[in-house]
Amino acid sequence: MDVILNRLPLNEEEKAAFLAAAPGIEQVFLPAPNLSSSETVIPPELLGRITVSLGSLPVQLLPQCGSLKWLQTFSAGVNQFMPDGVFPEGAMLTSAVGAYGQAVAEHMFACLLALMKRLPEYRDKQKTHAWAPGGRVKTLQGATVLLLGTGDLGSHFARLVKAMGAHTVGLNRHPDRPVEGIDEVHPFGELDTWLPQANVVAMTLPETPETIHIMDSRRLGLLRPDAILINAGRGTAVDCLALAEALRTEKLWGAALDVTEPEPLPADHPLWDCKNLLLTPHVAGGARSEDVLRRLAALALDNLKRYLSGEELRNRMK
Amino acid sequence: MDVILNRLPLNEEEKAAFLAAAPGIEQVFLPAPNLSSSETVIPPELLGRITVSLGSLPVQLLPQCGSLKWLQTFSAGVNQFMPDGVFPEGAMLTSAVGAYGQAVAEHMFACLLALMKRLPEYRDKQKTHAWAPGGRVKTLQGATVLLLGTGDLGSHFARLVKAMGAHTVGLNRHPDRPVEGIDEVHPFGELDTWLPQANVVAMTLPETPETIHIMDSRRLGLLRPDAILINAGRGTAVDCLALAEALRTEKLWGAALDVTEPEPLPADHPLWDCKNLLLTPHVAGGARSEDVLRRLAALALDNLKRYLSGEELRNRMK
Repeated sequence: MDVILNRLPLNEEEKAAFLAAAPGIEQVFLPAPNLSSSETVIPPELLGRITVSLGSLPVQLLPQCGSLKWLQTFSAGVNQFMPDGVFPEGAMLTSAVGAYGQAVAEHMFACLLALMKRLPEYRDKQKTHAWAPGGRVKTLQGATVLLLGTGDLGSHFARLVKAMGAHTVGLNRHPDRPVEGIDEVHPFGELDTWLPQANVVAMTLPETPETIHIMDSRRLGLLRPDAILINAGRGTAVDCLALAEALRTEKLWGAALDVTEPEPLPADHPLWDCKNLLLTPHVAGGARSEDVLRRLAALALDNLKRYLSGEELRNRMK
Repeated sequence: MDVILNRLPLNEEEKAAFLAAAPGIEQVFLPAPNLSSSETVIPPELLGRITVSLGSLPVQLLPQCGSLKWLQTFSAGVNQFMPDGVFPEGAMLTSAVGAYGQAVAEHMFACLLALMKRLPEYRDKQKTHAWAPGGRVKTLQGATVLLLGTGDLGSHFARLVKAMGAHTVGLNRHPDRPVEGIDEVHPFGELDTWLPQANVVAMTLPETPETIHIMDSRRLGLLRPDAILINAGRGTAVDCLALAEALRTEKLWGAALDVTEPEPLPADHPLWDCKNLLLTPHVAGGARSEDVLRRLAALALDNLKRYLSGEELRNRMK
């Protein structure tokens, strides 16, 4: 008989839907941990009994979960569970990939438009009570947006900028695979050729040995002086000191970062005072978005129904 | 024989197109005045000779323009030319209505998304070097956007929010006329019924006796506490002191104004220090947008070709 531990951040309606989906099955609802961490207290006697965990479990607790048959994570990435011996042999692992794309893309889109319309500059002027029209603004109509990262985040972001009239170019190791929202996909090896052609460069790359500091001082120098750089993937993909210097010397129009290296950004880092930078503290994709919470719940509910009826689970990683 | 005075802010390519459109006809190009004023020096001997003015002329100069057959304004509004006796009898007047819609709509859209994603708050935190995640953010998906003003600006704005998943409701004196981008059009008299239902209220109303302070203290009180108010029409449509008080007491989530009453906003006005307000100094639709400049030139060029071939002019007001 199954025992389900549910630690998703649910509203009342969603909780009722989970109860209705598994009649007669024991479901234990515990408060949702912060989505960016896995800290919570789970009664030890419960750990040994649960067969299903909706919501991640700390890796160090897994050895106590002798009955676990399926774990649905909160996160899109599941790297911590992948090394040999970490995850219980024979159990299923499903990720939340897809739950964050819309929220992160909307945040990136809002930051991009804010820079194009000089809103950070006007906000600074507002603080000093200065009614002072600024310089020329930009539009996405006819702009070329280069996407470094063409997964869930990049595809959602591409759809938004395309709806406002941009032309979207994605770089991918598999250029033969079409991506929704992206007009042209080219091999990632053409990066240095495409950078000087982009009005906007949008980065949503995962952290791998190849992506660390992929946007270094040399590549920042390839950007157009009126280009805008956005990063909402991993902070390590951009050399943040080189970016601060490029912004200070106006080598590009502006940048928006939701991720930095390191995080949190130290108070004495030169990025903070870059006027043409818009900085947010890794908030694009988290639990601050109702949209993310609703998608997490919908995905887990759908997977629970599939699990109980013996169908194939979505986002299966193991 | 025609004599054309051209004071549009043209690039070289556009200037060449105007020259090519009227071969053998005298065209005098003078520097473009600031789009928001009509001040410039035009040689008095020229005023008496011009038959076509591409770009507005100050009203007080019109009596000297004895040969004028057609005037194309820079502006969408032409109120100053409409009173009896002001505009030369028998001459044609065309406006630039339509040139500003996309630019103003994009500015409003950028401001709305910035508020929804708390970017002004994060900008303020950036200035103090504070890495501090904020509260919940909003999405347009499933939101109801109420449009007060369903003309060129309102329609363009509606298309943008609709593309991001919003439902659009417009109020209009002519509810039977469909408007592109607006899902439902209702009579303007239903304003008080619709205000409590809107997640976003977007105002692009012209200034008329009926629209002055249409958003007063009582109507601000009808808004949802999580509503966002945007005004990019005329500043007088909103009671700015009542809005400052509503924002201070958190009667609504936030507001963005590109227009105020009065303009410029006095340095001691309480709006400046409203944290949940994003204020821009009447810049949404002006010459700061390349898009507006290109549309003004394209409209005037098209009308010039029509004029020279005897076709009906676009945006004819007289």
